[in-house]
Amino acid sequence: MNSHKIAVMGYGVVGSGVVEVFDKTRKSIEAKLGKTAEIKYILDIVEHKGTGFDEKFINDFKIIECDPEVTVVAEVIGGVNPAFDFTKRCLEAGKSVVTSNKELVATKGAELLEIAEQNNVKYLFEASVGGGIPIIRPLRYCLVGNNITQIAGIVNGTTNFILTKMFREQMSFEDALSLAQKLGYAESNPSADVDGHDACRKICIMSSIASGKHVYPEHVYTNGISTITSADVEVADKIGYTIKLIAYYKALSNGKCEALVSPMLVNPRSRLSNISDVFNGVVVKGDAVGEASFYGPGAGKLPTASAVVSDLVECMRMEGVCEPVLWQDTKENCVVDIKDTCFPFYIRAKKSESVLNRLTSLFGAPVLSENIANQVIFITNEIKQADFENAIKVLEQSGEEIHYTLRVLN
Amino acid sequence: MNSHKIAVMGYGVVGSGVVEVFDKTRKSIEAKLGKTAEIKYILDIVEHKGTGFDEKFINDFKIIECDPEVTVVAEVIGGVNPAFDFTKRCLEAGKSVVTSNKELVATKGAELLEIAEQNNVKYLFEASVGGGIPIIRPLRYCLVGNNITQIAGIVNGTTNFILTKMFREQMSFEDALSLAQKLGYAESNPSADVDGHDACRKICIMSSIASGKHVYPEHVYTNGISTITSADVEVADKIGYTIKLIAYYKALSNGKCEALVSPMLVNPRSRLSNISDVFNGVVVKGDAVGEASFYGPGAGKLPTASAVVSDLVECMRMEGVCEPVLWQDTKENCVVDIKDTCFPFYIRAKKSESVLNRLTSLFGAPVLSENIANQVIFITNEIKQADFENAIKVLEQSGEEIHYTLRVLN
Repeated sequence: MNSHKIAVMGYGVVGSGVVEVFDKTRKSIEAKLGKTAEIKYILDIVEHKGTGFDEKFINDFKIIECDPEVTVVAEVIGGVNPAFDFTKRCLEAGKSVVTSNKELVATKGAELLEIAEQNNVKYLFEASVGGGIPIIRPLRYCLVGNNITQIAGIVNGTTNFILTKMFREQMSFEDALSLAQKLGYAESNPSADVDGHDACRKICIMSSIASGKHVYPEHVYTNGISTITSADVEVADKIGYTIKLIAYYKALSNGKCEALVSPMLVNPRSRLSNISDVFNGVVVKGDAVGEASFYGPGAGKLPTASAVVSDLVECMRMEGVCEPVLWQDTKENCVVDIKDTCFPFYIRAKKSESVLNRLTSLFGAPVLSENIANQVIFITNEIKQADFENAIKVLEQSGEEIHYTLRVLN
Repeated sequence: MNSHKIAVMGYGVVGSGVVEVFDKTRKSIEAKLGKTAEIKYILDIVEHKGTGFDEKFINDFKIIECDPEVTVVAEVIGGVNPAFDFTKRCLEAGKSVVTSNKELVATKGAELLEIAEQNNVKYLFEASVGGGIPIIRPLRYCLVGNNITQIAGIVNGTTNFILTKMFREQMSFEDALSLAQKLGYAESNPSADVDGHDACRKICIMSSIASGKHVYPEHVYTNGISTITSADVEVADKIGYTIKLIAYYKALSNGKCEALVSPMLVNPRSRLSNISDVFNGVVVKGDAVGEASFYGPGAGKLPTASAVVSDLVECMRMEGVCEPVLWQDTKENCVVDIKDTCFPFYIRAKKSESVLNRLTSLFGAPVLSENIANQVIFITNEIKQADFENAIKVLEQSGEEIHYTLRVLN
């Protein structure tokens, strides 16, 4: 086939961006593909007038499902329902589907990838992680000669904006959140962002690619940023570190993996330490490449649309090319319990005559130890979470006052 | 075809890395492809013993050329001869070729891409820019929905190492170069690196992808780092800037482009300002994505091999998929003359009673102006190079002493 008809499902922020970006670059895309391509339908329950694409709007999904001319579909509805049903039916009807829907990929990816493979079509989701930043395809294809050993990312722009404001302008978490809401970076119910659920979906997707096994959100320890106080920001700043919400994956030698989302104290040497505002960044470690990093706008209408359009083009370019499914639903949890994960930890404790000695006797010589404003700041070497928690209990039972602890990312 | 036979031409640093990385990840690659794959031949004029692959070595290119089983070839010989002849003959024999050979791609890319297209095979070169960093494929595919408006990169690790030493350890250029040679980062004849020719080849390749027209090295103004003095390093450091060798591309509205290699004074806000040592980084601006950056090891055996292997896999995955040629040989020079390029400039002049007034009257209000050690430091707004040079002449004719000027990258 030398001509492709595309359907775009959903005309919200991302959907309208996809139509705009595709329309603007259509000639160049056709030249690069050696095929013509056009958007035939835009599906939305709301009527849109004066878009310049009025005649393409439909509100009945079945029109797309039953039109054999449509070979590629962009699902930019978001959420699991009806996106899951629509995606499944498109794939079963022999249409490739591309999406920015991280929730759907993180919860139903293995199932949809299998349906896509059975029908010899694609299910692609470059836009589901890192907005416009190329990360899924580099991870999947460019680093194929590597065992991916670790992924650490700032993959939620809202929380990164809040933390940046807390650091640069000494705002409280609450004030920074209000500002983010005012600027449209955070929802009125900000839980998906500030509690880490959005970042969790994204690390699930990257972990699934890296491990070849579906990593489900319910198996990933997820902790948000709402408990971070000005005191921690101040201390981090004084020792030259920063605090970021980190989505983290580590391959273990037994075939399992660590996968978690947690605020971490970030070493200034890390490539993630200077990623600010709503920007995202991902650092990938592989046994051949060493370390490769990706940085850019993690959200927004046009950046996300840029990624969706690249997947539309990939489907057209790759029409008929078979590939085994990207990851399997192994039915068993391949993520180790959070108690078995290993990190260096930061401890902020009330200064006492005994606390530094006690810390040293429990954790060994510190990586960093400072006295700041009647507090002892102590960074441990890497330690298993269960051992760390036990040691903290011992400290508290001895009467020491522990203000806060955080994982450390080097 | 469900099985692929690969030939590796050249068993130097990169070639031995390709064999090592492919061997190590072969099982995982085969699983991802759903096909088997093996290295059948390794071509080298030198005899290698005890490699674990001894039986694969051959020294006659014709064996590869005439073996129809071989469908994919890695050319990691380097240089134009005999790499060009071998590559051409492989493509004409219906074999896809992948390479790390930036010199060959930069000088003969359009011709080889056309031969590849005529024979319905691939000519890929992810490893030719940025070593192990995914950059070619992201530029080509992930950002396909963008008009690429600007590329700025640190793409030569040797010069970046030298500049890092000059900044961090106050070494002279000569001492830093000697150290780079001692550590194996620079050749005994370091011209290709320090004079910017290597970076020139890489910006030619990226510019050709971005513009769709072959940008040839002889049209790209290329200036190296050997004239940078400790005085400039000291001043840059004092004003919070750094100096990097920047490979630069900018699309112009008339269909032409700016393409050059030059040391630049880099604004601390640039994502390139904190890329140190032998690492590389590339910042790409596109009208949809905004800005996306890529960072990692720009050279080295295993990182480069990682990129070559990813291209081998791409050839096997994409077997039989036709694509128009990536860029055309337009026969005319699409790069504007260096005198017509526009940059902000940094000026370091001897302090005099008149110099600041004269600078301001010629260039307008400065972006930055400081007095440092009996010198005036002045950063202009963006100005056309020809106008800048004329203004500098006027200054010198008025008796002002201009120590040094540099382009500025914001």
